[in-house]
Amino acid sequence: MVVGLGTGSTVAWTIRAIGRMVAEGLDILAVPTSYQSEALAIECGIPLTTLSQNPVLDLAIDGVDQIDIRMNAIKGGGAAHTREKVVSIAARRFVVVADGSKRVEVLNRPVPVEVLPFAAMVVERELVRIGGYPVVRQARMKDGPVITDNGNFVMDVSFGEIRDPATLAQEISQIPGVVDHGIFTKIDELHIAHNGTVEVIRRNDL
Amino acid sequence: MVVGLGTGSTVAWTIRAIGRMVAEGLDILAVPTSYQSEALAIECGIPLTTLSQNPVLDLAIDGVDQIDIRMNAIKGGGAAHTREKVVSIAARRFVVVADGSKRVEVLNRPVPVEVLPFAAMVVERELVRIGGYPVVRQARMKDGPVITDNGNFVMDVSFGEIRDPATLAQEISQIPGVVDHGIFTKIDELHIAHNGTVEVIRRNDL
Repeated sequence: MVVGLGTGSTVAWTIRAIGRMVAEGLDILAVPTSYQSEALAIECGIPLTTLSQNPVLDLAIDGVDQIDIRMNAIKGGGAAHTREKVVSIAARRFVVVADGSKRVEVLNRPVPVEVLPFAAMVVERELVRIGGYPVVRQARMKDGPVITDNGNFVMDVSFGEIRDPATLAQEISQIPGVVDHGIFTKIDELHIAHNGTVEVIRRNDL
Repeated sequence: MVVGLGTGSTVAWTIRAIGRMVAEGLDILAVPTSYQSEALAIECGIPLTTLSQNPVLDLAIDGVDQIDIRMNAIKGGGAAHTREKVVSIAARRFVVVADGSKRVEVLNRPVPVEVLPFAAMVVERELVRIGGYPVVRQARMKDGPVITDNGNFVMDVSFGEIRDPATLAQEISQIPGVVDHGIFTKIDELHIAHNGTVEVIRRNDL
């Protein structure tokens, strides 16, 4: 089995659990979505591969920043959403793990958008044109903007309540200079933790 | 006046001509779209600026690989199409210069697509899914694939005759891992050279 490993504090628990299963004999290969999940997987003894060697994954597991009742989500708080999205579409089954606090009726968090640095000002103007309020994300432990694992900037773009995530996703994708955005519309399963129990919601059941 | 400078052998003539006008007193700033056009502009004495300092350009001038009778074009033979597209949308007026051989009834050249290297195999599969035949462009003067000025791969993707460039452009833009593609649908003016005369076609006149 080949598994995509998401990025972030929630899915880190999953990666550690997979590490324990590997130690007990589980035979899998994993594709990480960031330097962070790669380092954690190595630390946990999970054998790694790449999308070049395994472009089809059996399963990808990731967290979300916010998810609505129709299984549309916003990701990218960790600036890893471009690799996460590529890994998610490479997977036959894309599973999201979250606690109940992530679930909302309507998405309303700022949408992270990865942008080619030379194009930043032009993309900013285009994002305003489609109704957004973009802010270039600033780093804490270096001077200046956050640089993604792909070498680009991230803008956090407020759109207020996002009633039609699929259309907004399309509009942002078409802006030249945008690498990818944090709206995810193809989640197959959501596993929500509630005080020790786990609720599983499948897209096909909606 | 702030002017975007395209990339390639045709627009190189334009850059040299602008250089002569600057030597004669023309007061402009230019934004290049590649290391190549930057070097040529410096050689020709054209003062340069960036999109960060001047996100709105008065004019951008560029070449094309192929252009149809409705002013849709394919660009990217020089792997510069991502920066060229950003510069073109930053411009109030986007002018294409070409000789008659570039003009066709229906676009049919392979579409250059800039792709994040780690996502190449996944993007390849998605391009096949929407009807394309992608080939990763190989370099001549280095081993392995061409690397763009942005550090990515380029795939040349055959779709046969492209009857609906705008829809295909949308489909390619939405594939995760794609940075940008060479379909241009927002050209304001086309200047075609015919044996010493120049024909000007404006989008608004079509």
